[in-house]
Amino acid sequence: MFIANQNFNRLPESYLFSDVARKIKDFREANPESKVIRMDIGDVSLPLPECVVEAMSRAAAEMGQSASFHGYGPEQGYHFLREAVAETDYRSRGIKGISADDIFISDGAKSDLANLGDIFGSGVRPAVVTPAYPVYIDSNVLAGRGGIPENGRWSGISFLPARPESAFLPPLPHRGVTADVIYLCYPNNPTGTVLSLDKLQKWVDYALANKSLIIYDSAYEAYISTPGIPHSIYEAEGADKCAIEVRSFSKTAGFTGVRCGYTVVPRSLEFTFIDGTKASLNRIWCRRQCTKFNGVGYVVQRAAEALYTPEGREAIRRNVAYYMDNAALLRSALLGIGADVVGGVDAPYVWFRPKSELDSWQLFDRLLHRAAISSTPGVGFGKEGDGWLRLTGFNTAALTSEACSRLSHINDIF
Amino acid sequence: MFIANQNFNRLPESYLFSDVARKIKDFREANPESKVIRMDIGDVSLPLPECVVEAMSRAAAEMGQSASFHGYGPEQGYHFLREAVAETDYRSRGIKGISADDIFISDGAKSDLANLGDIFGSGVRPAVVTPAYPVYIDSNVLAGRGGIPENGRWSGISFLPARPESAFLPPLPHRGVTADVIYLCYPNNPTGTVLSLDKLQKWVDYALANKSLIIYDSAYEAYISTPGIPHSIYEAEGADKCAIEVRSFSKTAGFTGVRCGYTVVPRSLEFTFIDGTKASLNRIWCRRQCTKFNGVGYVVQRAAEALYTPEGREAIRRNVAYYMDNAALLRSALLGIGADVVGGVDAPYVWFRPKSELDSWQLFDRLLHRAAISSTPGVGFGKEGDGWLRLTGFNTAALTSEACSRLSHINDIF
Repeated sequence: MFIANQNFNRLPESYLFSDVARKIKDFREANPESKVIRMDIGDVSLPLPECVVEAMSRAAAEMGQSASFHGYGPEQGYHFLREAVAETDYRSRGIKGISADDIFISDGAKSDLANLGDIFGSGVRPAVVTPAYPVYIDSNVLAGRGGIPENGRWSGISFLPARPESAFLPPLPHRGVTADVIYLCYPNNPTGTVLSLDKLQKWVDYALANKSLIIYDSAYEAYISTPGIPHSIYEAEGADKCAIEVRSFSKTAGFTGVRCGYTVVPRSLEFTFIDGTKASLNRIWCRRQCTKFNGVGYVVQRAAEALYTPEGREAIRRNVAYYMDNAALLRSALLGIGADVVGGVDAPYVWFRPKSELDSWQLFDRLLHRAAISSTPGVGFGKEGDGWLRLTGFNTAALTSEACSRLSHINDIF
Repeated sequence: MFIANQNFNRLPESYLFSDVARKIKDFREANPESKVIRMDIGDVSLPLPECVVEAMSRAAAEMGQSASFHGYGPEQGYHFLREAVAETDYRSRGIKGISADDIFISDGAKSDLANLGDIFGSGVRPAVVTPAYPVYIDSNVLAGRGGIPENGRWSGISFLPARPESAFLPPLPHRGVTADVIYLCYPNNPTGTVLSLDKLQKWVDYALANKSLIIYDSAYEAYISTPGIPHSIYEAEGADKCAIEVRSFSKTAGFTGVRCGYTVVPRSLEFTFIDGTKASLNRIWCRRQCTKFNGVGYVVQRAAEALYTPEGREAIRRNVAYYMDNAALLRSALLGIGADVVGGVDAPYVWFRPKSELDSWQLFDRLLHRAAISSTPGVGFGKEGDGWLRLTGFNTAALTSEACSRLSHINDIF
């Protein structure tokens, strides 16, 4: 008799962003004349750069000719793209240890962040800095590592709450807290905060001392503007012995609907199996990908490669500047009305709490119903996010201005 | 302390097709003048149809304009493609129960066949008809359902060996054999055999009686030429209550390097959780995809949609006819030299055993070293495949003819 995975029954019915989408849909149906400004999900508004469109068309044409057709590619990704990543994103930035063999091309950060659970041994206890992207927790719960849900937590997962009173800085695990694998995301989603190299080094040192694995989600690294803030965890000493880094082209180049990213699993990353024998995570992840994945399409990998040309670099710079201008507008509008605001400087997310006693979903409803602005409720990222909302800089400049003007009447909203 | 998943240490080091590729590479390096004809991995040789290339270019151009840009799409796939699949592949063929809501667009059959394990409850025992595509077993072993390896089997998996003496027809599980989830692949990879509707109905009846789930891999259905052979498991009565069907555009339209397929999880598919509450597999799979996947790219889905136009249908017919002409050539060459041959009539795979006492890897080496033809050793699909080789019809007509001519000197080979 087939029995379904009980963990699906234990996760809350809906995914955060589905709940948000449903509320927006209901509001629009009830208020067909109102113009909702979407500042909730982290989707982008700028189209694909011209050089990317050209690369896709060129690659599609290649696929239409026998002599240049590409069938199955390597599951790890084509060498041309792995090499471009290793050279541009690592070696040329002074990170020497990373080469093409350490890079695995993916169909996006979400898949890899969730699928990395396949390489965890049984009994591995995850630790998550919250508020956090829900996929870290949900994917572990589905895999049976959640334990018992209690009061917005899971007994099988160590929660490391980053709180407003410490500017949402992540606390290292206390003594006695088990953190076999640690999810870190910087620049942070949802708070938009960043870690200095000093602070990041402390996490790496902790992981090395405790033989923990860090899964470092740096999907937003291109948004860092403050000098000295590390763009990669491999800027910290010893990180190539304890960390996997996950990145995406979604937010830098508008690839949310193209689906491409990459994951760095250094060959120097060595742990053990339960029987004490050595386990190269690079080899294991490669085997996982070869068994359960068939690689990213050729046309998509050529599109990503175009981002490593001078035109592609320039397009990313333009995109990032555009969205960060939006984020700066949002920041000052919110500061102007006396809200507590973090983020929006080295990240496209602005995280704020208006002067109000309302909880996140109440704030969300007010902002939607009174200003027709959609946001993401902070509590959706963990209970320490309650009372906060996340806005994104990913909308157009015009609609962001309009949103700021609506926000200036905040007294009418909250 | 992070511990790696021990199951990676228990799987044989290499994946079948990697072993084959390595041997071919070694041979080529040692014999640079010889021209190897690849008939091993199921990769295609015909380029993408013109209408697909045009659809990709058009969609890429759309992505380059703000007004027609597409960011995150639905994780389940765009409605335009789900609807085209439901209408063309199911409703218009007389399968009434399947609608767009039952279709999930994927990045290929391999990912879904492996990822479906995420919805299995603990204690579920898989059953695999062998010889079989290695992913069914390997993905279960990685997920901890393998048990102990012994003599080419795994104690945690029920093996249902299809043997030469019964024309590789799959045996229903004997009394006492547990088969909570059953992997079936028809037209079969690697043997090229098919199931009549009568025989398929027996499997469905078995699954309904035993509350088993069938995972039906029908990636090769377009190759069926014999009238009356079912193209979909949903042609069998009651299958919508016990079966998931996995399909791919890889072999029909040359999408091996594009990455798109789909999986049908009917809303009528209802099992239970361990606590006895009802489990809709459609809802669970949807949640799995929303949590661990971000959908297939827009350009790729538009490419797949083009296959449902009259030009696309015609291109598929032409591709299939071309490869099946190749398979027919291979069949008659092999029959001509007195080999035992199955497949190649309703499937692009020709499965054969020359008059020889050699095992599969020895046969593979002989064929490579003496005729410069690469094949896939039958034993790689399970031990009852030993002594057999798989050839594919996916090469070009010219190279297939050349291979047949080399095979005619079989006495010099084996």
